[in-house]
Amino acid sequence: MSSDKVYRSELTPVDFLRRSARVYPNKTAIVYGERRYTYAQFSERVCRLASGLQNAGFTLGDRIAILSPNTPALLEAHFAIPALGGILVPVNIRLQPDEVAYILADSGARFLFIDEAFYPQIAELDLAQLQLIRITDTGQADDPYEQFLAAASPDPLLRVIDDEETPLSMNYTSGTTGQPKGVLCTHRGAYLNAMGQIVEIGLDRDSVFLWTLPMFHCNGWCCTWAITAIGGTHVCLRSIEPDAVWALLADERITHYNCAPTIQIMMVNSAKAHALDQPVTVSMGGSPPSPTLLAQMKKLNFQPIHLYGLTETYGPITICTWPDEWNALPAEEQARLRARQGQGYITAEDVRVVDENSHDVPRNGQTIGEVAMRGNTIMKGYYQQPEATAQAFRDGLFHSGDLAVWHPDGYIELRDRQKDIIISGGENISTIEVEQTIVRHSAVLECAVVSMPHEKWGERPKAFIALKEGQELTEAEIIAFCRDRLAHFKCPDAVEFGELPKTSTGKVQKFVLRELEWAGHKQRIN
Amino acid sequence: MSSDKVYRSELTPVDFLRRSARVYPNKTAIVYGERRYTYAQFSERVCRLASGLQNAGFTLGDRIAILSPNTPALLEAHFAIPALGGILVPVNIRLQPDEVAYILADSGARFLFIDEAFYPQIAELDLAQLQLIRITDTGQADDPYEQFLAAASPDPLLRVIDDEETPLSMNYTSGTTGQPKGVLCTHRGAYLNAMGQIVEIGLDRDSVFLWTLPMFHCNGWCCTWAITAIGGTHVCLRSIEPDAVWALLADERITHYNCAPTIQIMMVNSAKAHALDQPVTVSMGGSPPSPTLLAQMKKLNFQPIHLYGLTETYGPITICTWPDEWNALPAEEQARLRARQGQGYITAEDVRVVDENSHDVPRNGQTIGEVAMRGNTIMKGYYQQPEATAQAFRDGLFHSGDLAVWHPDGYIELRDRQKDIIISGGENISTIEVEQTIVRHSAVLECAVVSMPHEKWGERPKAFIALKEGQELTEAEIIAFCRDRLAHFKCPDAVEFGELPKTSTGKVQKFVLRELEWAGHKQRIN
Repeated sequence: MSSDKVYRSELTPVDFLRRSARVYPNKTAIVYGERRYTYAQFSERVCRLASGLQNAGFTLGDRIAILSPNTPALLEAHFAIPALGGILVPVNIRLQPDEVAYILADSGARFLFIDEAFYPQIAELDLAQLQLIRITDTGQADDPYEQFLAAASPDPLLRVIDDEETPLSMNYTSGTTGQPKGVLCTHRGAYLNAMGQIVEIGLDRDSVFLWTLPMFHCNGWCCTWAITAIGGTHVCLRSIEPDAVWALLADERITHYNCAPTIQIMMVNSAKAHALDQPVTVSMGGSPPSPTLLAQMKKLNFQPIHLYGLTETYGPITICTWPDEWNALPAEEQARLRARQGQGYITAEDVRVVDENSHDVPRNGQTIGEVAMRGNTIMKGYYQQPEATAQAFRDGLFHSGDLAVWHPDGYIELRDRQKDIIISGGENISTIEVEQTIVRHSAVLECAVVSMPHEKWGERPKAFIALKEGQELTEAEIIAFCRDRLAHFKCPDAVEFGELPKTSTGKVQKFVLRELEWAGHKQRIN
Repeated sequence: MSSDKVYRSELTPVDFLRRSARVYPNKTAIVYGERRYTYAQFSERVCRLASGLQNAGFTLGDRIAILSPNTPALLEAHFAIPALGGILVPVNIRLQPDEVAYILADSGARFLFIDEAFYPQIAELDLAQLQLIRITDTGQADDPYEQFLAAASPDPLLRVIDDEETPLSMNYTSGTTGQPKGVLCTHRGAYLNAMGQIVEIGLDRDSVFLWTLPMFHCNGWCCTWAITAIGGTHVCLRSIEPDAVWALLADERITHYNCAPTIQIMMVNSAKAHALDQPVTVSMGGSPPSPTLLAQMKKLNFQPIHLYGLTETYGPITICTWPDEWNALPAEEQARLRARQGQGYITAEDVRVVDENSHDVPRNGQTIGEVAMRGNTIMKGYYQQPEATAQAFRDGLFHSGDLAVWHPDGYIELRDRQKDIIISGGENISTIEVEQTIVRHSAVLECAVVSMPHEKWGERPKAFIALKEGQELTEAEIIAFCRDRLAHFKCPDAVEFGELPKTSTGKVQKFVLRELEWAGHKQRIN
């Protein structure tokens, strides 16, 4: 495209590793249990991985799937495959065999790297079209993955990308409607959002990043690339045990990690929880942190950051930036503000809230519209789904499907997923607001609020609640608790206690609960 | 170009101000004596400036010159003119009228903003082709610049750039061969190097940046855009008085400034020098900081950063990154290492050292070659000089004209300059330009100008002159002759009369003269 221009090189996050290997060759890049790799070693392993794939018949544009927890192998795949001009397909390890089979077939993957622990998820599949590379994840010479690296050349790779808008990864959405879709991320978008992450979550060369967030979620919100770019240290982790995480925070002097509030709730409620010597920055996304959680985090010296984004936006695209003057506000007001999703990243255009004609809604903190955006950190499209892409991209904006209000200061605040809003007697009720109120009760672990049909009001909220271990509560107590804190029309009419249904990614499946409530109805609004 | 793509917006540093005005509207953007502008005000002033230019007949691609010290007006021009799709031409305030006239004519500028203090430099020029806007720099309603803003619309500007490779500024080099050349910087390059500055010099939202470095040098090494991007505070400054700077460091809680080592020498030797409560990061370029200076800085709690670059690389393109382990070395060894120019920025490709065939020299710390580079932060070319551009860009690399060795760890270290450039207190002086001025004297037969080492300024020009037969001249007469025709910093400090050493073919051997001046020095730059 432009390789003949002296003043242009195609943006690619692969260059971040090239540079860190050059500038920080002896710095620790990866910590994984007893294993340690310097940047020089990390880079050599990536070159070997890419070269091994070439030996195995890789051709430009091939899709290469990997089913692995947060191991060095998965991190290495984030560089080796894009460096080759391939497309990385990171697969969620919590999926059922049928779901994995769908992704392998839809992506047309030619290679599959599989962590041994997850082999049962593919054991029954017909994988005739694939080359399989097993990872026993010992890092020892007899690990087949290590043998794959050892047999390949450590020589530096040539640049192959001649257009920065070439896709480098395909990340499958959890698919709220129908089958999952492959979200195409480009070299340019990944480069820019990684730079955005450095700036927005405040990374520097001394940052030590703990991999609590799965890398298969939006490539770890681009932190796979951002931590490498800044020359920080990746601390890899197969699974999240809060006690073990508490130990790592001290032993490895962690400075940053990312997670959903659910994980952070487990962290602050761990028996090992204690005030940290050094502040640890926790970037949270997926749902807003509750006032209760924020208060607990403050006591323990965690620095909260609230982000928002989707797979289609390379992970986070907004941040609830915190002006100094907000620190002077009462704690409750601070928590209310922290629940906002905020404004577009430094690398993003304005993130907007629009009506059904894709026109901006008034910035009044009241009018609900759909969150929509455009710019360099929006996916290139859904893989081989031109209609779904065109629908998502209508009117020149990516439509997120999330409903929000737009505050006068430009911050957006989510009110609901588009199909979850409760309209009761003409009044809008945000299920998130009700949920946040309920989780402030000390006995509540987590909660989901959905609509149920109601003869008089059309729809009414119903709360599903999981209690903390050993706690007891009645429906009447919860309703009274809400009525003390919320407009009465917003309070649930019914409460049910028990475990919440969740997706493989740990997201509460509100639609499952809603389907139960609406059984026998033709539609889901009233 | 690509405005129809939802997933693409053209990179431009103008977006940094749009975003900071949205996210930090009430934060102090500019401090200038008693004047203070928030980001909302800064943005409004920029919109008015752009809109005023439209009212005055601006058309796309117009060149707009400005002759001003580091005032809010010059900072505002860095956003308003690119936002319009115009090309900013910042003029060095130390130039003589003839030199200014050349730049105005060569750039074809249609507008000139002129700070009143520098009006004498243009008073005698024929400016018929230009619209002139005077800046009395009071910020009061009767300042013609303020009147220009007041008469214009504060409405936000539409995006006009449809290709990020469009030039946004033209910065004149000192002209190694003959006349100065206009270096074309693009929106893409400026955006990326500004992001690079944030990462490399460690800026964050709390950064307070003091404008000791002239903005007319490579757009202030892109800090005009970087400080704005991060939402930091610009502290503007008309001129550098070390005592006044010391007062500002405390009063405004400065965290960062950039300068040539000469300025920093003045700072540490100021009567007001004292150990700082808070570390202040000083990014130095133009020549390497001396061991003495580094030792003095350490005592005073300055954190040195050593950068290297050229106008053709948007300012800095390498940084002497400082691995932790170097802190354990003896002070002398640390100073030796700190003198290295280092490695490519996070936003740059590798910066190389090449032989006359543009092939890499060995990385042995011994072989001298030319510093060469390519990538997004290289100029687009010299304005209307395709031959000079092709010569600089031969073999697909930009050739810097600087001579260096390449160390085994990838750091470059400058040894000499190829193109007869003298760097004196951070200002480039073309020896050829000085020679061409001197030979205009009717008594002069021929002349050679070389650098000599200077304790305060690093290097200063010295002229060797052969007079015509029967003519007599004094050193003072020659210096006065130059001062009438050249910016004073370019005029020789010393003059020696006599025959010039020549090759057998009659070419003046400047290196012989220079060797005499630098006898006893290990390298030929200071």
